[in-house]
Amino acid sequence: MMGAEVLVSAWVDAGMWNERRTSPSTPGVSSPGRGAPCRHPCSLPGAASAHPSLFLLARVINSGKSQHNEDQACCEVVLVQQRPGQRGNPAAGEPEGGRKGLCFHYWGLFDGHAGSGAAIMASKLLHRHVCEQLRDLVHVLRDPAPAPICLQSDARALAEPSRAPLAEQDAEPLNDALPRFHLEKAVSHESLVIGAIENAFKQMDDQIEREQATRHVAGGCCALVAVYLLGKFYVANAGDSRYGGAGQGSPLPARRRGIPARPRPCRRAGFLRPELLGNEFTHLEFPRRIQHKELGKKMLYRDQSMNGWAYKKIEEDDLKFPLIYGEGKKARVMATIGVTRGLGDHDLKVYSSNIHIKPFLSCYPEVRVYDLTQYEHCPDDVLVLGTDGLWDVTNDKEVAEVVMDVLMGYEPNDPCRYTVVAQELVVRSRGVLKERGWRLANDKLGSGDDISVFVIPLGGPGNYT
Amino acid sequence: MMGAEVLVSAWVDAGMWNERRTSPSTPGVSSPGRGAPCRHPCSLPGAASAHPSLFLLARVINSGKSQHNEDQACCEVVLVQQRPGQRGNPAAGEPEGGRKGLCFHYWGLFDGHAGSGAAIMASKLLHRHVCEQLRDLVHVLRDPAPAPICLQSDARALAEPSRAPLAEQDAEPLNDALPRFHLEKAVSHESLVIGAIENAFKQMDDQIEREQATRHVAGGCCALVAVYLLGKFYVANAGDSRYGGAGQGSPLPARRRGIPARPRPCRRAGFLRPELLGNEFTHLEFPRRIQHKELGKKMLYRDQSMNGWAYKKIEEDDLKFPLIYGEGKKARVMATIGVTRGLGDHDLKVYSSNIHIKPFLSCYPEVRVYDLTQYEHCPDDVLVLGTDGLWDVTNDKEVAEVVMDVLMGYEPNDPCRYTVVAQELVVRSRGVLKERGWRLANDKLGSGDDISVFVIPLGGPGNYT
Repeated sequence: MMGAEVLVSAWVDAGMWNERRTSPSTPGVSSPGRGAPCRHPCSLPGAASAHPSLFLLARVINSGKSQHNEDQACCEVVLVQQRPGQRGNPAAGEPEGGRKGLCFHYWGLFDGHAGSGAAIMASKLLHRHVCEQLRDLVHVLRDPAPAPICLQSDARALAEPSRAPLAEQDAEPLNDALPRFHLEKAVSHESLVIGAIENAFKQMDDQIEREQATRHVAGGCCALVAVYLLGKFYVANAGDSRYGGAGQGSPLPARRRGIPARPRPCRRAGFLRPELLGNEFTHLEFPRRIQHKELGKKMLYRDQSMNGWAYKKIEEDDLKFPLIYGEGKKARVMATIGVTRGLGDHDLKVYSSNIHIKPFLSCYPEVRVYDLTQYEHCPDDVLVLGTDGLWDVTNDKEVAEVVMDVLMGYEPNDPCRYTVVAQELVVRSRGVLKERGWRLANDKLGSGDDISVFVIPLGGPGNYT
Repeated sequence: MMGAEVLVSAWVDAGMWNERRTSPSTPGVSSPGRGAPCRHPCSLPGAASAHPSLFLLARVINSGKSQHNEDQACCEVVLVQQRPGQRGNPAAGEPEGGRKGLCFHYWGLFDGHAGSGAAIMASKLLHRHVCEQLRDLVHVLRDPAPAPICLQSDARALAEPSRAPLAEQDAEPLNDALPRFHLEKAVSHESLVIGAIENAFKQMDDQIEREQATRHVAGGCCALVAVYLLGKFYVANAGDSRYGGAGQGSPLPARRRGIPARPRPCRRAGFLRPELLGNEFTHLEFPRRIQHKELGKKMLYRDQSMNGWAYKKIEEDDLKFPLIYGEGKKARVMATIGVTRGLGDHDLKVYSSNIHIKPFLSCYPEVRVYDLTQYEHCPDDVLVLGTDGLWDVTNDKEVAEVVMDVLMGYEPNDPCRYTVVAQELVVRSRGVLKERGWRLANDKLGSGDDISVFVIPLGGPGNYT
């Protein structure tokens, strides 16, 4: 239906996890590998059977926060098949019209909120939307020439045989008009993959909306996705999960903080469309809540266009609740949700009101590219994807230390080593149950959240070839 | 009226320049110094008489592009007096209520378009708006403590004697409520100055709007402003003028490109308020203009939320003209204006239509801070501000070479040396009139635009003390 042909389903059906509910006192840490049940038919081609992603995820269910683990995960190798009728340059010996494909490796973490419905849907379907978006690009990405501005399609000519004159125009080169030539933008292959991933998130979000309208798919989710395609990692992040590189190689992908807030676009939307604020919120920013008795005083503020701060005389309108309130992890949009990017949440409203929050959220991820072909990597270099349950209690340095400690204990070609790293990261972030709750080695509070971690090797034998 | 008390008017009335119209064949290069006529009463305090900014600007009128030079400039030392009735911590020996002041040094370049009205107004008034915005901050900036969230004012208590209960509440500390204390944002002094400059631009823009409504003040202008206050340079840029550091010291302020386009906020405004596009423009971006015959084809595009590119099937709506079209210097908003930041342009409409362009422009500058106290500078280190007439034909390296060449020929304490640098930069960017027009030393075309350059010394004797 979506053109996705799953070659390797390296990961269990996300729904499985909800059945493995463990009590708060015995959080279940699991890391299924080859033996895990597969939902999709598996067909392991030669090289992919040694795929390093088979052993690398560990997760733990939250310590009593909710009935279900709201984290979901997905790991796949997906074959993208060229759309039928798409014109490409046939490779030598390949018959015209022969369908060609591209493979991508895919890892996704989905941290649900207000229910696991959106997270489960996204974990099962987002890679298919990525695949669908890439189908137009199969022949473009295989061709070293710059991306054509206009796709040439056999399908259209076939579908509209009555428009012969247009079909004739099709035959002439489309980019030949000299006067406008210098105004054409060159679009890189990388930009096309970024655009495909961005649109896949949008399509996924639209699909969740349709499901939420017809049956109960609750809540929303943050999504952190890594796509490996043609030598490059594309890491797409919508929400407060994070990723970073660890190991000995250099340079590794820099740790990317979660992006819980896009305060500027949020406030600008409130400024441009004040009707969306429902007369309850103000798009202005203040360093703290204004009290009614402060009416008429001069207080610090800034508006949607300012980077600095200034004093303004407080008016009645300024007493409304701030559109975004709080700092860092505690920041909330409309006093309701702690992230401004993510999937789902279409029906989310401000408590006891009819004000929708979705117009202030973005389903588009921030996509960063890491070109694996530019650097030499050793088997100890990894990309770590983690939900906020990991990063809230374990910092970059501690993650790097765990990676090095664990990997040193295994042979470089032992694929289990990455799974053990992931397990170790999860176990350390959960901590040990003591009298005063779950405690880390340093006696600080462990994470009470769901924790999911992917450890993805960047170098070494059998690596994505 | 605005609390500005101009101590040193180091620069001639901007209006003077329009009278010095020179013919295209003999462009007038001028650099008035101490002898230049002053519009404001001058009172040179001790140190300021050796102020290095007295000799540093050179300008040339465009080679026939327009009747008047649309570039305007301003250079002032401004005393900011505390607002009467503002509560501050009186300095030792200073009587309570004694008015205190702060000095700032100010340089402004204003590159007008569609008339010089807005540029002339801004050159005469923007520094006064900066002064006005800083008046609330005099005692705050002099106090090393963090900025108070709420300004305590004697004036209000005096003005509202009938509201005794409130006055009583005033007496209690405002930030004492413990539960919310951790939510208070700390606002730095630097942020306050940035906010003051941002709001000064906004006030200036509002004033131009009022003038444009009542009498003819034509066009708009780009504004590039440097403010030196309490050891730091604040460089505020709204438009396509640019600045950069040159000399031997390190690190010098990095060259800041002009910011002709804010495509993302522009397109987002078009997306959120499509009625502003007047059914004539599309907020979508295409790599080139779409032709009618391409209807139904799949072509590259991106929308307001995407960083990457994708293909979409062209629909009727996509044939509308792009909200932003073209690249770099050639980019235009609504096919009309080449900058998206600046002052004025309130009455600007799309040609032969009723579509206003101002909603897509921003009057707020981008403000960068350069802390002079962090580094040691020698007399050869300068900050160069220039309108696009300079940077369009002279690159960073060439500017740095001119700076070094000229300064080497003068004693380090000769204040003329900076003026000669500015003159030399202007002369070289204009070039020499040959048969095939104005030509640079490398035989490339010289700038046909107005050219204005400030060369501001960062180190050396008599420096801002």
